[in-house]
Amino acid sequence: MQISELSDRSGLTVQTIKFYIREGLLPKGSAVSATRSEYDRRHLERLRLISALREVGDLPVAAIQQIIAAIDDDGVSLHELFGTTQYAIGPHVAAPHDPHWRAAREDVDALIRELGWSVTPRAPARDLLAHTFVALRRLGFPITLTDLRPYVRAATEVAEHEMARVTDEASRARTVQSLLVSTVLYEQVLTALHRLAQEDASARRFGTG
Amino acid sequence: MQISELSDRSGLTVQTIKFYIREGLLPKGSAVSATRSEYDRRHLERLRLISALREVGDLPVAAIQQIIAAIDDDGVSLHELFGTTQYAIGPHVAAPHDPHWRAAREDVDALIRELGWSVTPRAPARDLLAHTFVALRRLGFPITLTDLRPYVRAATEVAEHEMARVTDEASRARTVQSLLVSTVLYEQVLTALHRLAQEDASARRFGTG
Repeated sequence: MQISELSDRSGLTVQTIKFYIREGLLPKGSAVSATRSEYDRRHLERLRLISALREVGDLPVAAIQQIIAAIDDDGVSLHELFGTTQYAIGPHVAAPHDPHWRAAREDVDALIRELGWSVTPRAPARDLLAHTFVALRRLGFPITLTDLRPYVRAATEVAEHEMARVTDEASRARTVQSLLVSTVLYEQVLTALHRLAQEDASARRFGTG
Repeated sequence: MQISELSDRSGLTVQTIKFYIREGLLPKGSAVSATRSEYDRRHLERLRLISALREVGDLPVAAIQQIIAAIDDDGVSLHELFGTTQYAIGPHVAAPHDPHWRAAREDVDALIRELGWSVTPRAPARDLLAHTFVALRRLGFPITLTDLRPYVRAATEVAEHEMARVTDEASRARTVQSLLVSTVLYEQVLTALHRLAQEDASARRFGTG
């Protein structure tokens, strides 16, 4: 197909597609004349991935380049590929150098050890969790392992389900896109369902009607 | 205690405390002389609630006024009070008037009916969920009830746990604060744990080591 059809089918302007080619995110089409290149399904699939990474993951071009390089390199295992994607998404919370922060981060590390989870020391989610521990403590709601248990159980069940859904049949690009969607969009789904479930639980426990 | 001590113990400046009094968020102290007022524990507790609503809920003064009025009015049931707080937190996503949105919102309403949940039609979480349905469909990951099941289960378990934790012994102010913390901060806890659990599940399923 020509670039105009690629534009129609991807919903991206020709200008945006050319920008992605210049940035090395999308391979050039095969030249069929001095002014015309031919594109195929892989270009369209790649554009859909880039759009998802930009819109859902809100990722800068540099992070997208890194993820695409990992997709294209078959020497990178699916597990490493997931790590690259998830760590790029963040959120990257700033780790202040104060004792409250250090104590919270140590609690997080101890929790992960206790759960026996295989998570690298540089996982951004460790800092995100430490950040919430600091906020909870400051507000007079210090966290305990018992408090965390239902959340750990819920998170584990959901993550197990998501990983079980990954099949070897899909392309690596589609698999990354699916993980991105699970991470960012299904977390919003979980948040929305949590609020709805809270209202229902409150109605049953405290409702007058 | 004097306003200076109230400032020390709440961590808020005297200026901020006076602003809250002017806005009607905090009752005046009892005048002990022409230039001095006396404050007590209830003032301190109220300031902690206001801080939590501002910092954690990111709420404007008008929403805080509404929540405080509901706390002070014993005619408002705990269930209504929770609703006032939760609906004020939002997030309030804009509902565009297009067919995709309407279809997604109808799916959300059908889901809530099917689950038998007691949730008002104006709950902001309905729109939040519809918003994610639209995004998932656009990215080629249309949602089905089967896909949602693990998320519904996780959300329900967490919400039940949170409501079971509410005791009649705590003051209404403390109860609202605790709900706010559950809603906003424990959702961040759940997000962080979800990412960590994903990494662990991926290591077990796809890791090479």
